[in-house]
Amino acid sequence: MTIATERQITLEDFIKLPETKPASEFINGEILQKPMPQGEHSRLQIKFCTNINQVAETPKIAYAFPELRCTFGGSTIVPDIAVFRWERIPKTESGRIANRFEIHPDWVIEILSPEQPQKKVLTKLLHCSRYGTELGWLLNPEEESVLAVFPGQKIEIYEGDDKLPILENINLELTAKEIFGWLSFGS
Amino acid sequence: MTIATERQITLEDFIKLPETKPASEFINGEILQKPMPQGEHSRLQIKFCTNINQVAETPKIAYAFPELRCTFGGSTIVPDIAVFRWERIPKTESGRIANRFEIHPDWVIEILSPEQPQKKVLTKLLHCSRYGTELGWLLNPEEESVLAVFPGQKIEIYEGDDKLPILENINLELTAKEIFGWLSFGS
Repeated sequence: MTIATERQITLEDFIKLPETKPASEFINGEILQKPMPQGEHSRLQIKFCTNINQVAETPKIAYAFPELRCTFGGSTIVPDIAVFRWERIPKTESGRIANRFEIHPDWVIEILSPEQPQKKVLTKLLHCSRYGTELGWLLNPEEESVLAVFPGQKIEIYEGDDKLPILENINLELTAKEIFGWLSFGS
Repeated sequence: MTIATERQITLEDFIKLPETKPASEFINGEILQKPMPQGEHSRLQIKFCTNINQVAETPKIAYAFPELRCTFGGSTIVPDIAVFRWERIPKTESGRIANRFEIHPDWVIEILSPEQPQKKVLTKLLHCSRYGTELGWLLNPEEESVLAVFPGQKIEIYEGDDKLPILENINLELTAKEIFGWLSFGS
């Protein structure tokens, strides 16, 4: 997952490189390519975005974006899901959504892929927390657990019927069980 | 790793059960048996205890115990390594070490075993943090990372040459690299 870089590159250098697929991130001076998304990842990503936007878009509270590059605090990351409060969504002068997001998300959701080192994803969530992200989630589909990161890098673990913490003012109630239940397709 | 328990058992019930090998723990109402320790686990466990006790025993600062049952906060756990500040080590009236430790350790070190769910070990470390443990370490030999838990359940990730946080007043300096270097035996 780590691309060996002999020479130290800067954020400015990194930003100029062509985008890769899956996206590459630049965190703490290190370039990391995201794992190739698979079934579970894809399903959870779209389910979350849909669920959040269903309750948060019309009342203009927040919006959830999949795979959006966010550059802040000397790093550039592409969270699986980045949720921004409505008034913080960067816009052009004509009021259209900006292409470059140079601010921290308010809520970041990461889905652990098989074989992906947990420390890399946690490092990303802690970077967000340090720069103002109010809530981080690390979903572990294998363990069916959610690790939440709160301000001050405080963490909690949720599983089963535990009610998950949601970004304030978003009218959503979810348990760990419900989320991982999305992975089962009834016949 | 989880032993299915249909009926709810209490801490009092659990304590009366015979000890198992590996030890069983009772956390948040759930009985969990520790994984069978293997090479890496065994090596790290003894290395840590030796290193800590070498600097902390003679000046009566602290003592590191492997596999010691600690019962507090409605749970009973057996950390891989439990470090107690000298003055907090429970003693009998005659000044001998007590057999039952009914207090939280000051520093808890857990070594993740292959296949062991990280959430279970983190839940244990967070339980300790909530009840007063100053420092928790979760060593991940596969990822060569250390997740540290500070008061208020605040976490940080350490790897490579990062200097690891040590329980205050213990005169020890260690990096993640040094610790996982202990796993290599020179020929």
